[in-house]
Amino acid sequence: MKKVIYENFGNPAEVLKVVEEPAPTLEAGQCRVEVLRSPINPSDLIQIAGEYGVKPQLPAVAGNEGIGRVVEGDGLPAGTLVLLPAGQGTWVTEVVAPASHLIPLPDGDVDQLSMLLVNPATAYLMLQDFVDLKEGDWVIQSAANSGVGGYLVQLCKARGINLVNVVRRESAIAGLKELGAEHVLVDGPDLAARVKQATGAKMKLALDAVAGETFGRLGDTLERGGTLVNYGAMSMRPVQMVAGALIFRDIKVRGFWLVNFFERASKEERMKVYGELTQMVLKGALYAPVDRHFGLDEINEAAAYTWAGGRTGKVIVAPNGV
Amino acid sequence: MKKVIYENFGNPAEVLKVVEEPAPTLEAGQCRVEVLRSPINPSDLIQIAGEYGVKPQLPAVAGNEGIGRVVEGDGLPAGTLVLLPAGQGTWVTEVVAPASHLIPLPDGDVDQLSMLLVNPATAYLMLQDFVDLKEGDWVIQSAANSGVGGYLVQLCKARGINLVNVVRRESAIAGLKELGAEHVLVDGPDLAARVKQATGAKMKLALDAVAGETFGRLGDTLERGGTLVNYGAMSMRPVQMVAGALIFRDIKVRGFWLVNFFERASKEERMKVYGELTQMVLKGALYAPVDRHFGLDEINEAAAYTWAGGRTGKVIVAPNGV
Repeated sequence: MKKVIYENFGNPAEVLKVVEEPAPTLEAGQCRVEVLRSPINPSDLIQIAGEYGVKPQLPAVAGNEGIGRVVEGDGLPAGTLVLLPAGQGTWVTEVVAPASHLIPLPDGDVDQLSMLLVNPATAYLMLQDFVDLKEGDWVIQSAANSGVGGYLVQLCKARGINLVNVVRRESAIAGLKELGAEHVLVDGPDLAARVKQATGAKMKLALDAVAGETFGRLGDTLERGGTLVNYGAMSMRPVQMVAGALIFRDIKVRGFWLVNFFERASKEERMKVYGELTQMVLKGALYAPVDRHFGLDEINEAAAYTWAGGRTGKVIVAPNGV
Repeated sequence: MKKVIYENFGNPAEVLKVVEEPAPTLEAGQCRVEVLRSPINPSDLIQIAGEYGVKPQLPAVAGNEGIGRVVEGDGLPAGTLVLLPAGQGTWVTEVVAPASHLIPLPDGDVDQLSMLLVNPATAYLMLQDFVDLKEGDWVIQSAANSGVGGYLVQLCKARGINLVNVVRRESAIAGLKELGAEHVLVDGPDLAARVKQATGAKMKLALDAVAGETFGRLGDTLERGGTLVNYGAMSMRPVQMVAGALIFRDIKVRGFWLVNFFERASKEERMKVYGELTQMVLKGALYAPVDRHFGLDEINEAAAYTWAGGRTGKVIVAPNGV
């Protein structure tokens, strides 16, 4: 079997390498799963760079989510489509795991189902955890053309929530409109004024994955007492905002990390969230455009391509070919 | 009577001027109060500069709190010491107001009592509103040698809360030690490491009035899930912190503005807070060092002196002489 590992933290285009080793033998209660798809999320690359909240022990196997098909084993019939265990190293040709750690899925679009665990849940929980949103309320997001951003467009539409989408380049607007986005604006110093002009509304919740000055600009669009949530720093800069937004406008700032959900949520809560998301993905109500597939042997190129930006959708690893 | 007014927003040392006008006549239910003391708070100067959360209509009378003695009138006996109504323009020789708007006080130190309304309440409420603090918990503050900072030292001591005090210059350390401060550190890039070394503890609550990078440094000293409150921007810079503090360490960021307390609190809540603070001030358990007094005619010099920093205590206006 082949797997993508890193022995040092650093630039993923440099530190990732493919190693080949004998496939592990099966024990009782285990299944062998052929890995079909595993997306490259920005958080995967940040983790490999050593900048993530939790550092894996080195050497580590890369990748944190994916989908596969049971080849043989104990507890699940061969041919079953399964979600791989989270955070176990998924950029591999095959996984051996206890059947109880594999979540069986109905057959469906393997690209879309492979992305179920991280981005749709992030979008779903950020709309739920901080503010009690009602139909007709307003939300704003930066990095709207990201994976999470696209899911937010669809989840807000399904729930009747108004969403303002902010991107960093004109060329990202068309893709968002195709996903059903109504308001799409390009970031800039006068963002709050343009949001006000376009919507006539004050935002209740702002979701930021860019950091830097974009963070403060989203804050400027919020109503008094509104909540500003950061879940990423694509600009690689600190978050910043004027103190007056906190003091005089009572803006509340929080962060979101999916790992906290897994730590805190009961099994019932997790099943509720993922049950709902799985149904939406299977029905096509939640969808992420796919830009390109890469094989395991092209992993350095894939990482560089993903990090460079300017894509039209997700980059997905297909360890056993497309 | 004389009063300090400003007709335009700008540098207080330039825009403030003293005008003389006939004393207003008394109506039924009103008292004439000779103003004894009114402190110069940083927020007064920020308001005059036009950078405050609420802009007064111009021309405006400067000053937002103070103490005086009833000279004549209806509803309170002459000679009664009273707190002036908040935010009514207190850098004046006399005030005419309804007796119901004047809060009678027992006789005591007029300097200390004149500062009751803003800074002690800010310190008190910041310890109460955000985190449920228990004896032995740890709190950190920047601008520890400010008026609010000194009150925090004393309030934490009275409640058995451990406080780490951060200042921006070595010369501020001695004054804080005199107030009873145990841990005093000078701000710098390695602040979090030095706090850890000095205390071996993680903070539950951080109170920042400096903004800029100091804001993020205080955040670095917090425990996971800790709260970082900003209530000022003495550095005149935006607040900033790494996104990872929000995401991976679940730091919660809030702002504090005393005006929100007045808007939200019931009369009973206000009486509880101010009743307790008044007793502490009268007993000398809450005390702010006074650097210097100025007369009304010296108001431009007083403003410049206050803003320049490097003081050893509060600057207080004594409109009718010390």
